[in-house]
Amino acid sequence: MSAFKKLVEHSQKCSRFQHLASICGWDQASMMPSGGNQARSEAMAELSVHIHGLMTQPQLGDWISDAENEALNGEQQSSLREIKRQWQQANLLPEKLVEAKSLAGSKCEHAWRSQRGNNDWAGFEKNWREVVELSREEAQIRADAANLTPYDAMLDIYEPGTSSASLDTLFADVKTWLPSLIDEVIEKQSSEQFNAPSGIYSTEKQKALGLEVMKLLQFDFEHGRLDESVHPFCGGVPSDVRITTRYDEAEFVQSLMGIVHETGHARYEQGLPKHLAGQPAGEARSMGIHESQSLFFEMQVGRSDPFIGHLANLAGQQFSGSEFEQKNFQKIYTRVKKDFIRVDADELTYPAHVILRYEIERDLINGNIKHTDVPELWNTKMQSYLGLSTQGNFTNGCMQDIHWTDGAFGYFPSYTLGAMYAAQFMASMKKTVDVNAVIENGDLSPIFTWLESNIWSKGSLLTTDDLVKGATGETLNAQYFKDHLRSRYL
Amino acid sequence: MSAFKKLVEHSQKCSRFQHLASICGWDQASMMPSGGNQARSEAMAELSVHIHGLMTQPQLGDWISDAENEALNGEQQSSLREIKRQWQQANLLPEKLVEAKSLAGSKCEHAWRSQRGNNDWAGFEKNWREVVELSREEAQIRADAANLTPYDAMLDIYEPGTSSASLDTLFADVKTWLPSLIDEVIEKQSSEQFNAPSGIYSTEKQKALGLEVMKLLQFDFEHGRLDESVHPFCGGVPSDVRITTRYDEAEFVQSLMGIVHETGHARYEQGLPKHLAGQPAGEARSMGIHESQSLFFEMQVGRSDPFIGHLANLAGQQFSGSEFEQKNFQKIYTRVKKDFIRVDADELTYPAHVILRYEIERDLINGNIKHTDVPELWNTKMQSYLGLSTQGNFTNGCMQDIHWTDGAFGYFPSYTLGAMYAAQFMASMKKTVDVNAVIENGDLSPIFTWLESNIWSKGSLLTTDDLVKGATGETLNAQYFKDHLRSRYL
Repeated sequence: MSAFKKLVEHSQKCSRFQHLASICGWDQASMMPSGGNQARSEAMAELSVHIHGLMTQPQLGDWISDAENEALNGEQQSSLREIKRQWQQANLLPEKLVEAKSLAGSKCEHAWRSQRGNNDWAGFEKNWREVVELSREEAQIRADAANLTPYDAMLDIYEPGTSSASLDTLFADVKTWLPSLIDEVIEKQSSEQFNAPSGIYSTEKQKALGLEVMKLLQFDFEHGRLDESVHPFCGGVPSDVRITTRYDEAEFVQSLMGIVHETGHARYEQGLPKHLAGQPAGEARSMGIHESQSLFFEMQVGRSDPFIGHLANLAGQQFSGSEFEQKNFQKIYTRVKKDFIRVDADELTYPAHVILRYEIERDLINGNIKHTDVPELWNTKMQSYLGLSTQGNFTNGCMQDIHWTDGAFGYFPSYTLGAMYAAQFMASMKKTVDVNAVIENGDLSPIFTWLESNIWSKGSLLTTDDLVKGATGETLNAQYFKDHLRSRYL
Repeated sequence: MSAFKKLVEHSQKCSRFQHLASICGWDQASMMPSGGNQARSEAMAELSVHIHGLMTQPQLGDWISDAENEALNGEQQSSLREIKRQWQQANLLPEKLVEAKSLAGSKCEHAWRSQRGNNDWAGFEKNWREVVELSREEAQIRADAANLTPYDAMLDIYEPGTSSASLDTLFADVKTWLPSLIDEVIEKQSSEQFNAPSGIYSTEKQKALGLEVMKLLQFDFEHGRLDESVHPFCGGVPSDVRITTRYDEAEFVQSLMGIVHETGHARYEQGLPKHLAGQPAGEARSMGIHESQSLFFEMQVGRSDPFIGHLANLAGQQFSGSEFEQKNFQKIYTRVKKDFIRVDADELTYPAHVILRYEIERDLINGNIKHTDVPELWNTKMQSYLGLSTQGNFTNGCMQDIHWTDGAFGYFPSYTLGAMYAAQFMASMKKTVDVNAVIENGDLSPIFTWLESNIWSKGSLLTTDDLVKGATGETLNAQYFKDHLRSRYL
């Protein structure tokens, strides 16, 4: 058997164990009663040790060298490149560091769940110190291996090929126009009247509505399902994608658009190349591209006039009230407000939240600031970007997100990269697809066909740059995002 | 580390992988959309190979020999006995045979799903021949190792310590009184009037009713849940027991008592000794004892007058109609009818179905009959025990059950052993607990306390004989079952 074939079979084996981890992880978040948690966590930890063991088997290095000398076609070469990438990522870190970071991260995250509500920075800081130290250690090892700066090496985990140099340029530009655009839009919207949700919107009806919206978005129910969890997510495996949402009976706004968002993630997974299932090349390209699909659904399609029309109609089949009129829906879903919390932020202020976090985590991981500097920096940047003070307000300031608690530094930029890619994809799609007419018509197939052929079916065969270039004729260009925001909000 | 400690840790490791298999198996039956099946089956097969590999690691034999020479307390000795038992079971069969039987079984079972409906014995026979051959091969290997007859060696998998000699005696006695008792009861019931279900009973209300009944039976919802599946079962892990049922909106009879039955299995699992979690000694004793708990709930408690009263009351909170009056409920749930299908059989005719299967599978595995003899034998015995002909009727005859399709020979006796144990436990419990008064009162705790201290908390620390003796003062005595049936039905 060729070395390449051995690698492919080994990848498929790992992927079968990952399948079990995904399903049990989904179950843990959406189905499991609380008393099952300890045994489940132990079982999941055992599985993760096993998977790590598989991914670091000593023969893999030889197989990779051998395969690099085999005659491979283009697709196989891409597959090998991704196999090697995952192998390098898995083998870089000493097991002791992985374990220490996992322990410190679990401890910090667990305590954070109550510390956040108590505004307890002092308590959090004690645990977080170790997480930051171990993350810096990890970043340094990755940096040395890849000849990158420490933060760029962390970025590479989530967004291969992206550098802080390019993000600096990208975000510096955004900072020149975003704050004033936000002010302008808020001024414009200040005289708008709209009816906020004010009823009791039963979970049952919200779920029925969500399922209708998923049908409109052509979610494949033969290969996935919708459930509930405290924190909405998209999990499972490509042949069986599990999305979740959270229902609040006092409103319908979050769960409804949340389902649209997760359906974007889900359709990407469902559309990944089936002949590469179980191989790294058959997986989603990056977190930024993943987010580009959910945001394409949520922001580009989901908040478009004709789609809002569908949402209002479908909602009208479950509920009644003036809040469900199309124009009102439109206003609800495009309302801009400077506020503290990223996850509740609107499309326009969201990038400000991300840029703030990016600048802080970059300097933190590169060792240019201390972890104790973070609250003050947060406050300064919040004042500068959104005019809000977080002085002494850790709950709604630097302690609001889960990401840093267990050391997932380098992830935040993916959100705004995703929003930018989504805008660029839409601009390109509009050259060949009459998007608004297609949405209005109710059969959105041409949109999905474009996404499937340009993005989903490519898996990780191309680098992000090549993927975006193939789909749009150019690499990332934030102008599309800026144009999109100005055209929607001004 | 002592060899015993090494074995315990190894068992716990295996049990963590078993945990993942249980949850993913539950998901496959109750949650997974059909399109997820292929990847799931591959992942489950990979996991099962991994677990088999762990259970046959070469050092285990040495550890067991070493542990046998270590100073162990009584509980540790029991634990070691069960560890050794599982290790022997896992190591007995050559991997090739395991694989061949698994493949032949899957093929036969899969084809059976359509062949059964088509009454296609000829098609079934072709696949089944191989399953029977491989099962005989397996039985012979087990028999040689344990110095048993082939069939007894298969029995030992599900019901350690039971022999066909004892079953022959047991069932020979049942055959002397059961057929005439059935006739007598049917004659008695022939003049009875009752209202059969005749409405539309919504799934939602049936589920709400089922959950109320589970509360009455003190199912621990912190450590388990109720869902739906085509074939009801009890799965999951002791800290998170997953029971399922199937709702038919044309009636409520099956799902309601089905939930009572599965809750019996579930409470046994939830009540297993927590300090032995992950060790073989902490698992349920046998299939017969497991069935004794579900049947204790379903038959001994569930069909008692005062419990039927609770069921009628609780059902009355969801539904209305004369069919929900207590006396009518009683009649529905004690109706006796000679019929073809085991899974739909009543309490009284059920043992006849089991004895028929036992006699056939015993002779088949011991090589005394050919697999092509089965239909005619089935017909003869059906005529003799229940007065029904299955001549040419394979669908409702020897092709009705799933068990034999993948070679689970030796399982059937567990059902009737369970019914007998349940009657014996009840007779013993009644010496110290005023069972009917306790049920009538609505707080069933004294019943569960008795079961927990006598059965559940013992796990597999005792042999079945010692367990039953400890609980009732004697080993299996079928007189209690006979007395129970006569007292309920005459």
